[in-house]
Amino acid sequence: MSKILLIGASGTIGQAVLANLGARHDVITVGRNSGTHRADFSQPGSVAKLFAAVGQVDAIVSTAGNLHFGPLADMTPEQFNLGLQDKLLGQVQLALIGQKYLTDGGSITLTAGILSIEPIRNGASATAVNAAIEGFVAAAAIELPRGLRINAVSPTILTESVGVYGPFFPGFESVPAERAALAYQRSVEGAQTGRVYRVQ
Amino acid sequence: MSKILLIGASGTIGQAVLANLGARHDVITVGRNSGTHRADFSQPGSVAKLFAAVGQVDAIVSTAGNLHFGPLADMTPEQFNLGLQDKLLGQVQLALIGQKYLTDGGSITLTAGILSIEPIRNGASATAVNAAIEGFVAAAAIELPRGLRINAVSPTILTESVGVYGPFFPGFESVPAERAALAYQRSVEGAQTGRVYRVQ
Repeated sequence: MSKILLIGASGTIGQAVLANLGARHDVITVGRNSGTHRADFSQPGSVAKLFAAVGQVDAIVSTAGNLHFGPLADMTPEQFNLGLQDKLLGQVQLALIGQKYLTDGGSITLTAGILSIEPIRNGASATAVNAAIEGFVAAAAIELPRGLRINAVSPTILTESVGVYGPFFPGFESVPAERAALAYQRSVEGAQTGRVYRVQ
Repeated sequence: MSKILLIGASGTIGQAVLANLGARHDVITVGRNSGTHRADFSQPGSVAKLFAAVGQVDAIVSTAGNLHFGPLADMTPEQFNLGLQDKLLGQVQLALIGQKYLTDGGSITLTAGILSIEPIRNGASATAVNAAIEGFVAAAAIELPRGLRINAVSPTILTESVGVYGPFFPGFESVPAERAALAYQRSVEGAQTGRVYRVQ
């Protein structure tokens, strides 16, 4: 049984990851407004405070992160920066700060998304942010010491989200969150590093 | 003869791009501390002011952008954010704001770098930033109206930079800036969009 910190535990993927990993591990849940601990990527110092409170863990899993979704023609630098500060820098912080709190051989699993390689209308910020997360994971993996690992999960649209986001993803096959959760299990319980697990 | 706005004109690549494009086009040079116009990505509003001063152009070419280079073990969120705000958001701003100033069929050419797909030690921020730029270009290309195009050039280490950066790129073949400049010419004078021109 490992001690796993799960950030974004109340989201659609987060709940499925909690159901999967919680069956075999001690999962500490973190959310903006719920969970055992509270943390908000958009607040400077929030991630540092989180780790100071939680201490050492065997795995860090993030299913959290916001970004702006909208037409390129109207997108402002401030809107584009939202995703840089939240989904991107927020998750990168979990790695930069969290690396010091991981036990030897521990892992970090971040969430990207299919738009990294399959752009859609309104998704320029999402594609950039998800591509950056996948890039960060590949680069960080070759520098982490002590057998620490880092991977990303990059799911397509979730079946549970089709009602809301379906029209933005024409012709995309959805996957149930339960299936996406398997990729997080592979990352945490497997041995690979620098991988992007695509679930599509 | 096209009117081309070149941001980063005094850099190693910028000078080579200026030599190439300047032979056939009217190139307006922009730099932090030199050039016909001054602009600094790190200053909010700088890009908007630049376009307000320059007005309509046929092409926007950026060879500018800073980021933090250093060990992952010591990298702070603030250091990682430098590249997000400068090389990434700075160049993205050129597209978001510049799209309104481009003539029909005009083009935007941004600069990424080989680390997007070939991570090295100390380069986690560079890999993330360059991957984000390549992603942004692929996504923005499908939304731009009026035949506007957007591409990225992703060069390996320049021969001119081997003296300074060579030790960080063990075994990488360098390319002369003059050869990298050809990729910018292909982007500006060609007809493709959403492309990453890799020079390696």
